Amino acid sequence: MTTTARSYAVQDAHTPFAPFSFERRDVGPRDVAIDILFCGICHSDLHTARSEWDGTLYPCVPGHEIVGRVTVVGPEVTKFAVGDIAGVGCMVDSCGTCPSCHEGEEQYCTGTGFVGTYNGADTVLGGHTFGGYSDHIVVDEGFVLRIGHDEKDLAAVAPLLCAGITTYSPLKHWKVGPGQKVGVVGLGGLGHMGVKIAAALGAEVTVFTTSPNKREDALRLGATDVIVSRDADQMAAAAGTFDFILNTVAAPHDLDPLLAALKRDGTMVLVGVPDSAHPSPSVGNLIFRRRALAGSLIGGIAETQEMLDFCQQHGLTADVEVIPIQQIEDAYARMVKSDVKYRFSIDMQSLKQDA
Amino acid sequence: MTTTARSYAVQDAHTPFAPFSFERRDVGPRDVAIDILFCGICHSDLHTARSEWDGTLYPCVPGHEIVGRVTVVGPEVTKFAVGDIAGVGCMVDSCGTCPSCHEGEEQYCTGTGFVGTYNGADTVLGGHTFGGYSDHIVVDEGFVLRIGHDEKDLAAVAPLLCAGITTYSPLKHWKVGPGQKVGVVGLGGLGHMGVKIAAALGAEVTVFTTSPNKREDALRLGATDVIVSRDADQMAAAAGTFDFILNTVAAPHDLDPLLAALKRDGTMVLVGVPDSAHPSPSVGNLIFRRRALAGSLIGGIAETQEMLDFCQQHGLTADVEVIPIQQIEDAYARMVKSDVKYRFSIDMQSLKQDA
Repeated sequence: MTTTARSYAVQDAHTPFAPFSFERRDVGPRDVAIDILFCGICHSDLHTARSEWDGTLYPCVPGHEIVGRVTVVGPEVTKFAVGDIAGVGCMVDSCGTCPSCHEGEEQYCTGTGFVGTYNGADTVLGGHTFGGYSDHIVVDEGFVLRIGHDEKDLAAVAPLLCAGITTYSPLKHWKVGPGQKVGVVGLGGLGHMGVKIAAALGAEVTVFTTSPNKREDALRLGATDVIVSRDADQMAAAAGTFDFILNTVAAPHDLDPLLAALKRDGTMVLVGVPDSAHPSPSVGNLIFRRRALAGSLIGGIAETQEMLDFCQQHGLTADVEVIPIQQIEDAYARMVKSDVKYRFSIDMQSLKQDA
Repeated sequence: MTTTARSYAVQDAHTPFAPFSFERRDVGPRDVAIDILFCGICHSDLHTARSEWDGTLYPCVPGHEIVGRVTVVGPEVTKFAVGDIAGVGCMVDSCGTCPSCHEGEEQYCTGTGFVGTYNGADTVLGGHTFGGYSDHIVVDEGFVLRIGHDEKDLAAVAPLLCAGITTYSPLKHWKVGPGQKVGVVGLGGLGHMGVKIAAALGAEVTVFTTSPNKREDALRLGATDVIVSRDADQMAAAAGTFDFILNTVAAPHDLDPLLAALKRDGTMVLVGVPDSAHPSPSVGNLIFRRRALAGSLIGGIAETQEMLDFCQQHGLTADVEVIPIQQIEDAYARMVKSDVKYRFSIDMQSLKQDA
């Protein structure tokens, strides 16, 4: 038995989103069925829908920042009950047996690789997985998150499932905390969460941005300083002063002035993959202060739960603009222009308007 | 009062080495005067002598892998006595007050920067410092190392002062030890010490080399495996298997297959600055396994002493070919062709042959 899901999908890289129906699997013993209330829009959704990365499988239903209400639980489910508010992020499964899975780092699964919430291999029904631009989803409880935020905030909680964990995980992994000076490069969907979380972790946060007009917002979000990265004088003055830099900018850019802003033993972590290479970073910059350039990918399920609990305790959510699903093409167009503060969140009740 | 030192110097970037006399400062209260017995030849010597890096000051007397016998100590010297065997490495001074100096990481001094053993600013006599291709040197005892090795081994101890510490420091900083699989890229002056030290630290060592004929030597030096880095099949088979990689190759090369050889959370450390950029490393390679690319510069004085003690305890020295100073030009020509196993060490008694 399956259930029919309503969604918005693209049928190929060049056709707009349109209503689409598909089948979700029946609720298995360890599964949780969730009626989706809100789904954030991640830049990865656009890259995948438009086949800007290789390997998009069509029809494509994106969405991996999912918050909703539990409607059915399988008989072996222990963590969720009907009526609970729950979340689903970028993964819905992994091999469960490789070293990374054993260590709760499912995002680095080296067995099968993790199963993406959309565009992954559906091991139950065959074909590929469909994401959160839909009315409901069925997921193994091991990949479902508890949401403790107030229900009025759920639209703004949804982006935590990707933008939140993608920034929280490296900040925690590299032990960012009080007494540290932390830079966040780029003030978009990821960056604005990076600022909020790094500040809540007790760090002194500076935003590096190409847009001087983002200063006021950066300070409101929790930064204490803003450096215009195109201003060579400001960058020179920042040299050697940062313990850690979280770089959320995926567009190719010169990493050297940012690496030079690190103190000895500082690390800059990239969380975005550029579609063409960054200019090759200076080796001298790394050697003469023992600096590191690293990368980080979302976060594990246990850490995602920790992040959600941390954000709830600190009153953190994303800054969102709520839209109906019918405005998805307009939202994508605005996202490409960085014209959103700072994440779109789709109100999935809007799916019913097409009925 | 000063003392006249005999040496070999180059007078400009294009003239061969020739005998040269200059003045060493008198022994100050905290100074140690050392009659130089052996001086290793580092590739940096050649880069500096031939002005392949910016900023060479002429006349240039290179040499920063110095071992000799103490002949005079100042009245406040506590660590050395006349007759001791002592070493001098890449640094002869630093500001002493910046955070890096306070933490014993003088190589990262952010005050004045460290004073290079040659081509640095001579703060006592003015002008610039002259290195170890000379008959004696006068150095603050804070930058002089104790040598515990047997005196018959001193020619092979000299290279530890740069090649030894440059490889020991990152291996220790990134906590290489038993149970770890470590790669060493390049089997030259630095690489052969990296293999010996990593093996002595208890790691399982693999050499990455472009020369299949280095296999036997690599195994003799302590490696358990050799991967020919130009063999795509061997590199593919190595993917995701290394905890740490020490990359000693300064020539521009593709870092990606090496980074891909790291496990999740692995680090590759570069210790050589290429004269033109490496191809830009893949960001995906970093992100999808949380890998890091870092750099490391020689080591602090305390750590250099620790390295020397470690090498003495484990019976480690460099593999050297001892030459008289008169053969320096030939040695440079062979070093450029990597035709040395694995370090030249100059017997400074040969200076007397010119008398």
